[in-house]
Amino acid sequence: MFYYVIDILGTIAFAISGVLVAMEKKLDLFGVFIIAFVTAVGGGTLRDILIGDTPVIWMRSSDYVITIAGSVIFAILFVNQLKYLRKTLFLFDTIGIGLFTMVGIEKGISADLIPIMCIFLGTITASFGGVIRDILCNEIPVIFRREIYATACIFGGICYFLLIQLPWDGTIPYISAILIIIISRLLAVRFKITLPNIYRNEK
Amino acid sequence: MFYYVIDILGTIAFAISGVLVAMEKKLDLFGVFIIAFVTAVGGGTLRDILIGDTPVIWMRSSDYVITIAGSVIFAILFVNQLKYLRKTLFLFDTIGIGLFTMVGIEKGISADLIPIMCIFLGTITASFGGVIRDILCNEIPVIFRREIYATACIFGGICYFLLIQLPWDGTIPYISAILIIIISRLLAVRFKITLPNIYRNEK
Amino acid sequence: MFYYVIDILGTIAFAISGVLVAMEKKLDLFGVFIIAFVTAVGGGTLRDILIGDTPVIWMRSSDYVITIAGSVIFAILFVNQLKYLRKTLFLFDTIGIGLFTMVGIEKGISADLIPIMCIFLGTITASFGGVIRDILCNEIPVIFRREIYATACIFGGICYFLLIQLPWDGTIPYISAILIIIISRLLAVRFKITLPNIYRNEK
Repeated sequence: MFYYVIDILGTIAFAISGVLVAMEKKLDLFGVFIIAFVTAVGGGTLRDILIGDTPVIWMRSSDYVITIAGSVIFAILFVNQLKYLRKTLFLFDTIGIGLFTMVGIEKGISADLIPIMCIFLGTITASFGGVIRDILCNEIPVIFRREIYATACIFGGICYFLLIQLPWDGTIPYISAILIIIISRLLAVRFKITLPNIYRNEK
Repeated sequence: MFYYVIDILGTIAFAISGVLVAMEKKLDLFGVFIIAFVTAVGGGTLRDILIGDTPVIWMRSSDYVITIAGSVIFAILFVNQLKYLRKTLFLFDTIGIGLFTMVGIEKGISADLIPIMCIFLGTITASFGGVIRDILCNEIPVIFRREIYATACIFGGICYFLLIQLPWDGTIPYISAILIIIISRLLAVRFKITLPNIYRNEK
Repeated sequence: MFYYVIDILGTIAFAISGVLVAMEKKLDLFGVFIIAFVTAVGGGTLRDILIGDTPVIWMRSSDYVITIAGSVIFAILFVNQLKYLRKTLFLFDTIGIGLFTMVGIEKGISADLIPIMCIFLGTITASFGGVIRDILCNEIPVIFRREIYATACIFGGICYFLLIQLPWDGTIPYISAILIIIISRLLAVRFKITLPNIYRNEK
């Protein structure tokens, strides 16, 4: 139940972020819905396709569709008020990333993949919805250009595989990894931590 | 046999629309063929990938490849004449959308999906070839910006699931849904019906 | 062992080409790694998804990830020196294309597909990593616009299916097809052979 609530909150935050990007591009209602949809479930869809776990996740229950449709209607109606919710949305989004990463890692473990591939799957789950959103909107994906985001997922995933070596039961590493992802992203944004610059001449 | 002919006509119309977009972008012969190909079979391919029905549809027989290759050669040779065929192509395209939507819905039913997911699959089958075409040509997909198109597919799909509740045999709802999609698109284009505008300030 | 070495060299060349494109776009370290990754394994991934052979190839062993990560680090450190290696990289790339095409064709044969689909799969394996790279970097894919590249793969594939009709054992057609692809690409680049122009008025 707890996970379910977090999953729904993350889906709402992702869908709303999709609506905001789509409305900046002046898409019509259908376009806005599709962008919200792929932002929210695109990462999980790509993960399921890569490991062959089909029908993909959002086809198996109507929860995702209903949640996203509700989020889209809400976001369109209150688009002007959403700027006051920016911090709340950012928090949902960050919590969503933490949870989605661990959902992807668990799926990788169930599919008997080696740890590094599980971490990849977790990162894909959390971040590739935004990549597909940006491609559909004809932009270079924002996570390829700045912000510690995918890096927080990778870091949290590595910590998870280290923590499960320790003699603790299964939920402690799981919860810890989610918290590590959330906290490292919050700290990175707060203190403007970025990846090392790889362009020598123009620093 | 009847369905087969319609399927081929729809494929031809979609492939030709791909050629026209690709030639505007000055792609070379290979690029034009690929764009025609993804426009014609991209929607069905995405549908098959999402439900795990692989190898995807166009790999199972050479009909699609031959039809598309023929359409590409025809369209390149007669590109200047095609403008006089615009209405015929639009009609093929609209018929194709109607049929492709129902093919997708049938596939969803065979895969035991709930009605809303079947309608999604039908809409994806009919409209995502064009989405992939536009992405490969570095444009924001046209169906995200204007035109009742995907909306006609969704509307026809909803009608289908209502009609099969009635005590009629299987082909009547099927044919009716195809006609509803075709007619609603023709009416929408004729009377310039669009989705409700979601941008308040700039109407 | 021989194939393995070629496969690794091809992967390195593809990954480095990804790094160079990504650094032109000023992506950050994560973006550069992802672009290198999709350039190197994107074609094989799409092939595996289309035929339903999942988990996709790079998930089954860490070789690809390690090779690509090493190539990315190397390319970032020596980006200024890489221009002196342009010919070497081009040769690796061309050898990679030859081998990747035949890997894809073999996969298609194992999946009982007809020859034309096997050739498609081979071409996808060799060339769609670059297509996905260009889409993620917001460019129209370069292979749709110029250069005999995919055409060399298709030509080599056709030769392969002709050669296996002859009473020779399995490795001769295989090696011959790889050499045909490599040589036809080298000749096409050397003598600036292109596809026939399909735009009448502006020759």
